[in-house]
Amino acid sequence: MTVSYTLKVANARFGGFSKLLFRWKGSIYKLLYKEFIAFAILYTIISLMYRRLLSEEQKAMFEKTAMYCNRYTDRIPLSFVLGFYVSMVVSRWWSQYTSIPLPDQLMMVVSANVHGVDDRGRILRRTLMRYANLSSVLILRSISTRVCKRFPTMEHVIEAGFMTREELKKLEGLYSDFNKYWMPMAWFTNLASQARRDGLQRDDVALRLLMDELNKYRAKCSMLFHFDWISIPLVYTQVVTVAVYSFFAVCLIGRQFLDPSKGYPGHDLDFYVPIFTLLQFFFYAGWLKVAEQIINPFGEDDDDFETNKLIDRNIQASQLNTSSMTVDDMYQNLPLAEK
Amino acid sequence: MTVSYTLKVANARFGGFSKLLFRWKGSIYKLLYKEFIAFAILYTIISLMYRRLLSEEQKAMFEKTAMYCNRYTDRIPLSFVLGFYVSMVVSRWWSQYTSIPLPDQLMMVVSANVHGVDDRGRILRRTLMRYANLSSVLILRSISTRVCKRFPTMEHVIEAGFMTREELKKLEGLYSDFNKYWMPMAWFTNLASQARRDGLQRDDVALRLLMDELNKYRAKCSMLFHFDWISIPLVYTQVVTVAVYSFFAVCLIGRQFLDPSKGYPGHDLDFYVPIFTLLQFFFYAGWLKVAEQIINPFGEDDDDFETNKLIDRNIQASQLNTSSMTVDDMYQNLPLAEK
Amino acid sequence: MTVSYTLKVANARFGGFSKLLFRWKGSIYKLLYKEFIAFAILYTIISLMYRRLLSEEQKAMFEKTAMYCNRYTDRIPLSFVLGFYVSMVVSRWWSQYTSIPLPDQLMMVVSANVHGVDDRGRILRRTLMRYANLSSVLILRSISTRVCKRFPTMEHVIEAGFMTREELKKLEGLYSDFNKYWMPMAWFTNLASQARRDGLQRDDVALRLLMDELNKYRAKCSMLFHFDWISIPLVYTQVVTVAVYSFFAVCLIGRQFLDPSKGYPGHDLDFYVPIFTLLQFFFYAGWLKVAEQIINPFGEDDDDFETNKLIDRNIQASQLNTSSMTVDDMYQNLPLAEK
Amino acid sequence: MTVSYTLKVANARFGGFSKLLFRWKGSIYKLLYKEFIAFAILYTIISLMYRRLLSEEQKAMFEKTAMYCNRYTDRIPLSFVLGFYVSMVVSRWWSQYTSIPLPDQLMMVVSANVHGVDDRGRILRRTLMRYANLSSVLILRSISTRVCKRFPTMEHVIEAGFMTREELKKLEGLYSDFNKYWMPMAWFTNLASQARRDGLQRDDVALRLLMDELNKYRAKCSMLFHFDWISIPLVYTQVVTVAVYSFFAVCLIGRQFLDPSKGYPGHDLDFYVPIFTLLQFFFYAGWLKVAEQIINPFGEDDDDFETNKLIDRNIQASQLNTSSMTVDDMYQNLPLAEK
Amino acid sequence: MTVSYTLKVANARFGGFSKLLFRWKGSIYKLLYKEFIAFAILYTIISLMYRRLLSEEQKAMFEKTAMYCNRYTDRIPLSFVLGFYVSMVVSRWWSQYTSIPLPDQLMMVVSANVHGVDDRGRILRRTLMRYANLSSVLILRSISTRVCKRFPTMEHVIEAGFMTREELKKLEGLYSDFNKYWMPMAWFTNLASQARRDGLQRDDVALRLLMDELNKYRAKCSMLFHFDWISIPLVYTQVVTVAVYSFFAVCLIGRQFLDPSKGYPGHDLDFYVPIFTLLQFFFYAGWLKVAEQIINPFGEDDDDFETNKLIDRNIQASQLNTSSMTVDDMYQNLPLAEK
Repeated sequence: MTVSYTLKVANARFGGFSKLLFRWKGSIYKLLYKEFIAFAILYTIISLMYRRLLSEEQKAMFEKTAMYCNRYTDRIPLSFVLGFYVSMVVSRWWSQYTSIPLPDQLMMVVSANVHGVDDRGRILRRTLMRYANLSSVLILRSISTRVCKRFPTMEHVIEAGFMTREELKKLEGLYSDFNKYWMPMAWFTNLASQARRDGLQRDDVALRLLMDELNKYRAKCSMLFHFDWISIPLVYTQVVTVAVYSFFAVCLIGRQFLDPSKGYPGHDLDFYVPIFTLLQFFFYAGWLKVAEQIINPFGEDDDDFETNKLIDRNIQASQLNTSSMTVDDMYQNLPLAEK
Repeated sequence: MTVSYTLKVANARFGGFSKLLFRWKGSIYKLLYKEFIAFAILYTIISLMYRRLLSEEQKAMFEKTAMYCNRYTDRIPLSFVLGFYVSMVVSRWWSQYTSIPLPDQLMMVVSANVHGVDDRGRILRRTLMRYANLSSVLILRSISTRVCKRFPTMEHVIEAGFMTREELKKLEGLYSDFNKYWMPMAWFTNLASQARRDGLQRDDVALRLLMDELNKYRAKCSMLFHFDWISIPLVYTQVVTVAVYSFFAVCLIGRQFLDPSKGYPGHDLDFYVPIFTLLQFFFYAGWLKVAEQIINPFGEDDDDFETNKLIDRNIQASQLNTSSMTVDDMYQNLPLAEK
Repeated sequence: MTVSYTLKVANARFGGFSKLLFRWKGSIYKLLYKEFIAFAILYTIISLMYRRLLSEEQKAMFEKTAMYCNRYTDRIPLSFVLGFYVSMVVSRWWSQYTSIPLPDQLMMVVSANVHGVDDRGRILRRTLMRYANLSSVLILRSISTRVCKRFPTMEHVIEAGFMTREELKKLEGLYSDFNKYWMPMAWFTNLASQARRDGLQRDDVALRLLMDELNKYRAKCSMLFHFDWISIPLVYTQVVTVAVYSFFAVCLIGRQFLDPSKGYPGHDLDFYVPIFTLLQFFFYAGWLKVAEQIINPFGEDDDDFETNKLIDRNIQASQLNTSSMTVDDMYQNLPLAEK
Repeated sequence: MTVSYTLKVANARFGGFSKLLFRWKGSIYKLLYKEFIAFAILYTIISLMYRRLLSEEQKAMFEKTAMYCNRYTDRIPLSFVLGFYVSMVVSRWWSQYTSIPLPDQLMMVVSANVHGVDDRGRILRRTLMRYANLSSVLILRSISTRVCKRFPTMEHVIEAGFMTREELKKLEGLYSDFNKYWMPMAWFTNLASQARRDGLQRDDVALRLLMDELNKYRAKCSMLFHFDWISIPLVYTQVVTVAVYSFFAVCLIGRQFLDPSKGYPGHDLDFYVPIFTLLQFFFYAGWLKVAEQIINPFGEDDDDFETNKLIDRNIQASQLNTSSMTVDDMYQNLPLAEK
Repeated sequence: MTVSYTLKVANARFGGFSKLLFRWKGSIYKLLYKEFIAFAILYTIISLMYRRLLSEEQKAMFEKTAMYCNRYTDRIPLSFVLGFYVSMVVSRWWSQYTSIPLPDQLMMVVSANVHGVDDRGRILRRTLMRYANLSSVLILRSISTRVCKRFPTMEHVIEAGFMTREELKKLEGLYSDFNKYWMPMAWFTNLASQARRDGLQRDDVALRLLMDELNKYRAKCSMLFHFDWISIPLVYTQVVTVAVYSFFAVCLIGRQFLDPSKGYPGHDLDFYVPIFTLLQFFFYAGWLKVAEQIINPFGEDDDDFETNKLIDRNIQASQLNTSSMTVDDMYQNLPLAEK
């Protein structure tokens, strides 16, 4: 489920964002705790080994290595590369969200411009909206884990009423390497064009309006397809990941507490628990987790887009508008007595 | 109230922004003073404890810990993560502002294209604009704390004249998990479409123009809804908050003045008041406060958008234009004698 | 006056930008010299006090304080926060410039689509353009210091020929908390709509074109109004200003030359003039000055937009096109003999 | 082949991006391993020379040089310049991808608006789409290495059915210094215009729609042409490259392990393998490789755009829609029995 | 000449960008070598002075000054301010490029919608395109050094066939402080409007299409004019330039090799040639050169836009399309035998 929290921090009060820290759902803790534990265990093992298992000579060797490692952790400019990388992922994430097609505009145009109060008109309006919804279901099935689970086969799409068995046959009649989400929109176009010829649309301007709205809808489906096809270059993600992972691998050794009695500079205290390294882990690994969570916002993370709910909403909105609320109902109720 | 100050700094004079520092309303002082005091008190308590309560041995221990902490505060790259995070929040904030729907364009198109000087025409024009305003009220009610307080129930919306009781019934007749702000716009579409059929709009081009403007208006409402639904990923906000908070938690210990007589490097002075740490607090916590204040610009902070005033303005503008200033008044007054 | 200099550096030659350094108008020297002198004087006073007035003991105290201050100046990440802040201000500055409404497109559409060679047609075309210009004057009056000085009262606007006294009465007949710049555009719409009915515009497509252009023009006026109303959050500006100011306040003490004979590390030379601190001042305070100058580009700084000149240009362009260069002149001169 | 991996990391699980590290295709390892080996070999040669060949005196000299070099490696702010440069390249890369013209919209408009069920109509529809595809092939041939290999001469384009021999003659009849990709679109325009005159397009609105879609398609081809013509300024790329290369040239000497027995600070361990320098190499050189790979996404890298596959898809989509799925098939199958 | 190199680095191979380093044309070496030599000479002079001319006492003084300078070079955050500044300049540079008006779309619309196969029609089409080209020449003359050299006077514009002597008289008949590039477009509008009245354009939709294309063309000319008028704020450029120049002025002293025999820390080697300072110079001054070269991309640098070549292309494209390739040629050749 999408985690909406801005209403909770609408006013900047004392403590501010602190109240956001005590949430589990969609939180960084939930995402990161496994890695955190793994890191802590590894650190402990090495710590124990150093304290218990090593001979004096080995200890001296280890200490030198640790100090050497520690000195070099500063050479990896994590914050820089993470800053730029996460910025890019975040802007892509929002673009993806705004690319999810919503049928509202299309629905309104269909409702206002495709006339006919008889069954013919009603079915026509419904079929047009069904095609639009079908397109978005076809594209979402291929990119969203959730939608894919809801409609594992085309059979499920038929059962949900998005397409008829004949339409499926038509769809499958065409072999393509690529997603065929655009076919129902071609049907939409043809149907609308036919409706114009039959006089169910009064004029060309209305048809043009319908086509324009469909194009916008289509462009969004297309963007979703492309966002899915063209990922952020793998090498970039790998470079960032390697940087973060190797940083913490080095920390496992470099940040060990060395025997204070040996008087190494900066090692005059033995806390056992490396609070600051854990904080750094929380911070840097958390920053990378931000990228991991939103690089594909169509998964099943707590904060991923609720594509199924959106589909439900779209169905409801589409059906509603094309049937119950006919134009004539509305207009005759115009409250003429208004001031 | 929105804080507009750029007119005061229109010219770059001596002192420049300094005059902006002596303001209380909407200022960083007002936002931050509580946290500042809390931080100062905590610092003082720890300081007193160190100076008065601890034994010599405990003091030595504390001093080591403090120096250890101090060394590690540099490891948290606050400025970096805050820079990127606040940049993102600021650009989102401005996008939200530009998404607030303004009915001006729509109003002008309605006024110029929906004809009829009799009551019928006037009521039609008014109803169209009322529907547009109703939509924006419905969406603003759900995202703006201020508008929500003004219209706590739908009853208040009716009283304010935005909708009739019958329309409310229609609206409530439809169950939906989501905000139904788009319904009045569907009514608008149907009504406009009917007006065309009745000849109150002369031609299809005008209807198209009306639909286009409505679509733009609608798209803005829709953006507001989405900005509200999809927050900045919670994990990002949490990572930043934890970084800032833990930084200052560490500072509480690491930035204590240690006994100068012990000769620790960098601790040869005891100022009692840690001016620079307080400055850092002011600076970093203030930067985070910027994000806290504008992450939801629809709250009741001094600098949040004045949604209620905007609604008032919209009502006024809408009513005015559709009644008093009819087309014919205007044209006959054309000063033909002009050079 | 706007400072255009890119033509001077069109080619990357030896020295490159160096020739830009010897300009006074619109230069950083002109903007900053007062602050610079103030800073230098304060520094000198403290320097003299330290050298002449203080007792040996006080001197020792001062020296410790100075070294302490100096160590902490590095803790304020000025370059980071300035980088992000100025970036934001610069992009806002350019958006404001591109939001200044220019009547050229509108003028061309009016000229080509509003017909009639008699007085009626000419006056109609002129009045339409006058309304467009009036709108931009109304909005610029409220945001630009220069335009406000040129038209201190509405009387001046009338005198300049932008509106008639009757129109002013109409405008003032409506009370509004907000700028009423949109009213002349409503008149424009109504007038154009009437012209269509009277046959001065041949068809609906032309009217639509006119409305589209007006909408674009209107959107720009609207953006100007919003840029003026919604400033960059005050807290952000305050945080940045406090950071810069406190940095240099600390420098006044921390960057003093201490008695070289005392052998403090890094203090083995006494230059009297702190060249590098002055360079830093020039650099950081100059960076902030960039923001100060362009945060409101409608002021009277050397580099602010020349709104008055733009208004003059708009008047000229509008008048010209709607009168002298009528359609018929043009077409009959078509050089048919061309190859 | 484009490397799509986001579906694999749809959910943020334990380990997160770690699974992406074990891929060879399109990976940073594949891109970088040659440089990595070269760097390692050079390092080893210098290391061996220092350990075996140099006299004691030469060693001392080398050691001083090494320490001097090491101190200065920090002076090259690689991460900064790489961050900004790669950001720019990435945003350009995505713009290029979204500029690849897709004929889908155009196809739908042609199919719905160019009528005629006889051969004439079908051929007309096909020819229009063929011209559109021809344009994109012409532009892609000049920028994509892959497409260029597929169609090394115009003869191949003819064989693939994109153009007739007569059309080629027409195309070659015009001499131009620039790519003539826009000619088939001029043919498209003329053909569509003729079709309107012959009544194969019923109305002007439809023709306008067709022209609008063609313009969008054209604008994309044009952007591709410009992206190819105007590279990122060469000087920028050179500055970044020189910075990275010189950094690692300096590292070859500065990061050598010096004889621990000599007691140089920071040189108390001899690991032989400079792990951290190799990590830095991997990291910085990898970051530069990101830029190298995507600065021209039309090459043959693993992660470059699959332009040939796109062309195939476009052909398929175009042919399909203009022949088999005629309007009439569709409409008569309307399932009237639907609820 | 524009330097296009991306095709050379289409595939990320071993060495990658290294092949770009051995180019002279448009290279950083060509741009920077003079500054580089000047810097080296100054450095040498100071070095010789220190080694040969100064007395022992003066040497000691110089050495202290040098160390003092060296310590402070780190205080100037060059990479930060350069990063932000160059980013801004680069994005502005690309916006300028995409603002160069190309007549292709306009040409296609004219060719398809302005009918008439007789001389009248042909001349009309040509004149329209001539006006469009004239506008872009007028605007480019005022901003591009190259175009200005090609057309030093209006006489040259006439000779090149862009305008007639009568049109020039018309143009000069109007006095204006600003560039009058928009006048030929006003003529275009009027001419098109007249053509509609004479029946050379069949319908209003076509006229509208023509106007829309002209508006886009016009908007681009307008953007060029504004980019030229409103430079990046001079103060920003000055701050950056002063930062870079003063940094290297300080380096001239601070980076001198001091007598190793005196045992100053970090000064145990005398290389004579300050490789790393020269590298830094190359790097930072090169970064600034990037900005210098592209801040005005209409100059005569190797990498500036080839405006003259673009003008030639535009003429060719315009003439071609409006004459030889008439609609009728095309359509009758439709290969009906196609499958």
